[in-house]
Amino acid sequence: MEISIQVAGIVGAIASVIGLGFAWYQRGYVLSQDAGNERMQQIARAIQRGAQAFLSREYRAVAIFVAVVTVLLALLSTVQGSGMSIWTAVAFVCGALASGLSGYIGMYIAVRANVRTTQAASRSLNQGLRVAFASGTVMSTMVVSLALLGISLLFILFTSVLEAHQAASALAGFGFGGTSIAIFARVGGGIYTKAADVGADLVGKTEAGIPEDDPRNPATIADNVGDNVGDVAGMGSDLFESYASSIVAAISLATLGAGLNADQQLAGQVFPLLIAAFGLLIGMGSTYLVKTQEGATQEMLLGSLRTGVYTASGLVALAIVILGLVLNLGWGVIVATLSGLIGGVLIGFFTEYFTADSYAPTKALAESATGGAGIVVIRGLALGMFSTLAPVVIIIVVTLLATSATGLYGVAMAAVGMLATLSITLATDAYGPVADNAGGIAEMSELDESVRDRTDALDSLGNTTAATGKGFAIGSAAMTALALNAAFVTAIQGSSGAVFTVDVLDPRLVTGLFMGALLPFLFSALTMLAVGNAAQQIVEEVRRQFREIPGIMEGKSEPDYETCVAISTDSAIRQMIAPGLIAVAVPIAITILAILGRGNFLGTLVGRETLIGMLVGSLVTAFMLAVMMANAGGAWDNAKKYIEAGHHGGKRSDAHKAAVVGDTVGDPFKDTAGPSLNILLKLLAIVSLVLAPLLAVTPL
Amino acid sequence: MEISIQVAGIVGAIASVIGLGFAWYQRGYVLSQDAGNERMQQIARAIQRGAQAFLSREYRAVAIFVAVVTVLLALLSTVQGSGMSIWTAVAFVCGALASGLSGYIGMYIAVRANVRTTQAASRSLNQGLRVAFASGTVMSTMVVSLALLGISLLFILFTSVLEAHQAASALAGFGFGGTSIAIFARVGGGIYTKAADVGADLVGKTEAGIPEDDPRNPATIADNVGDNVGDVAGMGSDLFESYASSIVAAISLATLGAGLNADQQLAGQVFPLLIAAFGLLIGMGSTYLVKTQEGATQEMLLGSLRTGVYTASGLVALAIVILGLVLNLGWGVIVATLSGLIGGVLIGFFTEYFTADSYAPTKALAESATGGAGIVVIRGLALGMFSTLAPVVIIIVVTLLATSATGLYGVAMAAVGMLATLSITLATDAYGPVADNAGGIAEMSELDESVRDRTDALDSLGNTTAATGKGFAIGSAAMTALALNAAFVTAIQGSSGAVFTVDVLDPRLVTGLFMGALLPFLFSALTMLAVGNAAQQIVEEVRRQFREIPGIMEGKSEPDYETCVAISTDSAIRQMIAPGLIAVAVPIAITILAILGRGNFLGTLVGRETLIGMLVGSLVTAFMLAVMMANAGGAWDNAKKYIEAGHHGGKRSDAHKAAVVGDTVGDPFKDTAGPSLNILLKLLAIVSLVLAPLLAVTPL
Repeated sequence: MEISIQVAGIVGAIASVIGLGFAWYQRGYVLSQDAGNERMQQIARAIQRGAQAFLSREYRAVAIFVAVVTVLLALLSTVQGSGMSIWTAVAFVCGALASGLSGYIGMYIAVRANVRTTQAASRSLNQGLRVAFASGTVMSTMVVSLALLGISLLFILFTSVLEAHQAASALAGFGFGGTSIAIFARVGGGIYTKAADVGADLVGKTEAGIPEDDPRNPATIADNVGDNVGDVAGMGSDLFESYASSIVAAISLATLGAGLNADQQLAGQVFPLLIAAFGLLIGMGSTYLVKTQEGATQEMLLGSLRTGVYTASGLVALAIVILGLVLNLGWGVIVATLSGLIGGVLIGFFTEYFTADSYAPTKALAESATGGAGIVVIRGLALGMFSTLAPVVIIIVVTLLATSATGLYGVAMAAVGMLATLSITLATDAYGPVADNAGGIAEMSELDESVRDRTDALDSLGNTTAATGKGFAIGSAAMTALALNAAFVTAIQGSSGAVFTVDVLDPRLVTGLFMGALLPFLFSALTMLAVGNAAQQIVEEVRRQFREIPGIMEGKSEPDYETCVAISTDSAIRQMIAPGLIAVAVPIAITILAILGRGNFLGTLVGRETLIGMLVGSLVTAFMLAVMMANAGGAWDNAKKYIEAGHHGGKRSDAHKAAVVGDTVGDPFKDTAGPSLNILLKLLAIVSLVLAPLLAVTPL
Repeated sequence: MEISIQVAGIVGAIASVIGLGFAWYQRGYVLSQDAGNERMQQIARAIQRGAQAFLSREYRAVAIFVAVVTVLLALLSTVQGSGMSIWTAVAFVCGALASGLSGYIGMYIAVRANVRTTQAASRSLNQGLRVAFASGTVMSTMVVSLALLGISLLFILFTSVLEAHQAASALAGFGFGGTSIAIFARVGGGIYTKAADVGADLVGKTEAGIPEDDPRNPATIADNVGDNVGDVAGMGSDLFESYASSIVAAISLATLGAGLNADQQLAGQVFPLLIAAFGLLIGMGSTYLVKTQEGATQEMLLGSLRTGVYTASGLVALAIVILGLVLNLGWGVIVATLSGLIGGVLIGFFTEYFTADSYAPTKALAESATGGAGIVVIRGLALGMFSTLAPVVIIIVVTLLATSATGLYGVAMAAVGMLATLSITLATDAYGPVADNAGGIAEMSELDESVRDRTDALDSLGNTTAATGKGFAIGSAAMTALALNAAFVTAIQGSSGAVFTVDVLDPRLVTGLFMGALLPFLFSALTMLAVGNAAQQIVEEVRRQFREIPGIMEGKSEPDYETCVAISTDSAIRQMIAPGLIAVAVPIAITILAILGRGNFLGTLVGRETLIGMLVGSLVTAFMLAVMMANAGGAWDNAKKYIEAGHHGGKRSDAHKAAVVGDTVGDPFKDTAGPSLNILLKLLAIVSLVLAPLLAVTPL
């Protein structure tokens, strides 16, 4: 059956509109819930204000960046023979807006769902789960719908006004726009959340000996704001981008005919759109399977989420097979797409294996805490490093399977397959910070022990889903980047008319690889230092308040929450600029040098080979570091909780103190540097893809 | 002027014999020194016995490996059309013997120089420095002389019995033999030294509150043995291998004509040998410049070592220019060689900048210790990551300069240039553990405070030279591996008659890159876990002795040192096998799969592209990790010492406790995992180069 781009675009748009409607409906459900007593609402409002203030400042800063890039892209399109169209700039703006909106709405609902989850948990566990999870589905369906809607409409538009090649190239601008928001959101949000968290813990828990989320701790509101701006808004923009870019890469590769017969090219372009449309609806529907009963164990709660995700995966697999057959794409394409879907599930599983305290690695890590802080840190780093084995093997198998099934197009379809269930997988992930906040609010408003127990159960579940979500985010980022790289190289070889081969010992390629390997290390160093700096400021402010505000420790006078919020905000915004700009500037700088070097001596030092080396080098290195950081961080966190649950001496034992050190190291690992690397590797790839026409004009 | 291979080989051999004579002379000087009182000699003998026992067991284990590989190489040479000669096996055995001998003699003299340094330090600082440094020169001239002698003689032999191509290929066996010893020596020695160190510190310093090297600590002899087997024998085998392989790679590339005109090929082959010969003699002579006076400050001690190294570098630079001109190789080759020499010095400088407490980074790290253990670990990791910037930029500049000056041959010559002054740089490095041991012996034999002060000064100098030595070892390993990779690719394209280009998106290349990036992480995880396991055993044994031996804490009864030595030995030998075998097995497995896959479906999944991807991926990733680990480890160590010197509260303050945690994490980083990565990347490259003829037979 032949389906035209218009029809596929319309299907995509319709699915998106249904998704948006569903998100609106779920939003209504969340907001209709009881927001609790005055004290709870007061705390929730403080969190809302803080999150709102941060996002406003972040978006204002990013707006300047977006404006500058838009103008540059527009200017580039006017240069004779640049090969770029003005529509790239249009797509860029749309992508930036949609990504920003996804993050904003996700956060908007999360900071309202938190207090309602607390209140619902005072009724029953299932009620609490439902509210928190509904908030997650608002976010997930928004992200997926906006991405799909943008691509569908732009694709219809571009194919009607541009040639096929140019349409695909312009579409890359949409992904670029999304990533531009994502990089600042992830880095800024990541710095914010961990600075507040580490700062609050160091003085509160360690020095003053008061529990987490204690209302006497001046940094506690900032800590809760952080969960929302980092884990919700940042994660939303991140996955928006993976999702959009994987589809864009698949369309580009199909348009360029990589790995497809000539008569499959059209089907190859509409296939990712249709998979995405069906995946959105299936995932949305499967969210209804997530429910539980009172007194549910952790296993049961997790089982309920898994039922939703696995059902969605099964149905999407079916959709992939049927659509592939209907479109006459053949089993090669189907196998490639399925390999990504299954690979994503497997990566999630192995992430859980390495980070959940029900498995051996984290148990052994917790035991090593009896040997002291040094040993637990060494063990955690080793665990993180070792845990890279499974994801790498999975990525290798998926890549080989996908490419041998249907060439480079297969890689992109594997990424699309991996992300097809995003409308539910992201919901399980976005649920986490809401449950975390709900617990914080319960503690701060000094609610009944039973409520806190229920929110603790919900929070603990959130930690596990956050870890698997991170694994999934990294895996999909790697596949997406691989697909984008494929699209990039195909784009530059497409117009030069020849397969782009390189001498493997070309010094430009080799030095590019070194540059690429350097970037993730440099980037992680900057983000981790930023957390350290910001946390230090928070520590000093909290110490000052404890010292200067009389009666604060007795709970007689209110701490000054606002100042801690302001410090986190300032510090995060200021420190997100450098790493963000580096990520954008490096591929642009190499591109410019490659163009300047055409036919002269400079060209023997820098060229397209440098850019390719840099892309591939950063991809593999960032992937390794990101997996290591996420898993080490997750394992330390859960090892600490495992000890707190009464093992190896329980709370306040020496083992617990050692585990807290591990957790402190893990915080910026898993929530700042690690997740930021996802965006780094995608950003490098998409910037290069957007600029590909410049490099394709004349073969070097 | 034309110099034949025979003449160059004879020059190399003569220089080596002079070097060996010098080493023998210095050995005599060291052994003629007073070995101190009975107590000191008793301790020294215990260290000697432990080191001897470990090395015997290590060499016995490695001998099996060497025997198996020799037989395999011999068998391979009998296979019709394999392109390999029996001489590869001969060279392999020679390399293994020479490398093993270098390590053995270095250790032999170090465990005798330690106590004599203590005794000499009781007379004056300069006397102590002279004895310790003389021990270092024995090791350094032995390493360089044996490597040069082996290559010179084998090269004369091989060129007379084999064709040029085959001679170069067989010579690679010499490097392979050296690396095979080095991988086990570095990994085994690294596990031993840090297990004993961490174990001794955790119970002794942290739990029992007794000083380092206190004779009451049962692990203290094992700790001192560790310095010798890890830092002396391991480092010796490591640099033996870099040194030999860089020369082998240069000869191979010259033979294959990469980057040289046809009439330069002969000169290109003899040039590295002559540089090495002159470098050996110059470095040897410059060791006489290392001396100091009583009451010398740290700056003055360091200045004295620097005078030696910088003078040697200047003279070697002159030799490079003169030899290059005499041989008519032109300025391109000269610039390439000099760029390596200068690059090595610069890497050493930046390593010092990031790890010495006289510069800002380590000062800031020490200050962050006031924020607690978590913060100091985060900062240290960030410092390590950030510190990769300078070495990467240096490697990039050297690579671009060398290749644009004279192609791939330039890369190998840059490595040769970097290592040309090894006969003095390695001496400054091998001096460190001797000074460290000397301090330990002074403490254990309860000598006068003034002696301990002098040995402390010598030890502190050793820490700085150890850090720069590590930076230099990594930098030279990267350049050597790059040169070996170049030789490998040239070798496989050489016989297929065409430049070997690959599609940059070839899935085999991409998956090979992922595999390559995985290996260093996996390898580091295994070695770090090994240290953790072994340290845990030591901790339990020391606790047991404190508990069960009556009067041990009052110094009335002698602890059982032997058991701790035995535990460290067993544990290190057992745990060095897996990482060592992985490093050898992976390139062999890929080679076999690539051969099996010729012309069938398997070949679309695994091929020469996989091997190349793996080599390049592991090179860049291992380099980043190794630099990060070495510098983070060095900075933590010195930050701790900086605090101990009275800053931020001094010894026993909270900041000091936090810094000790950082140092504990840094120990396996800088002395086990980090240095082992140097060998990993060289081993992968040299195994591939040795097997290159198999892959070159038929173009895939």
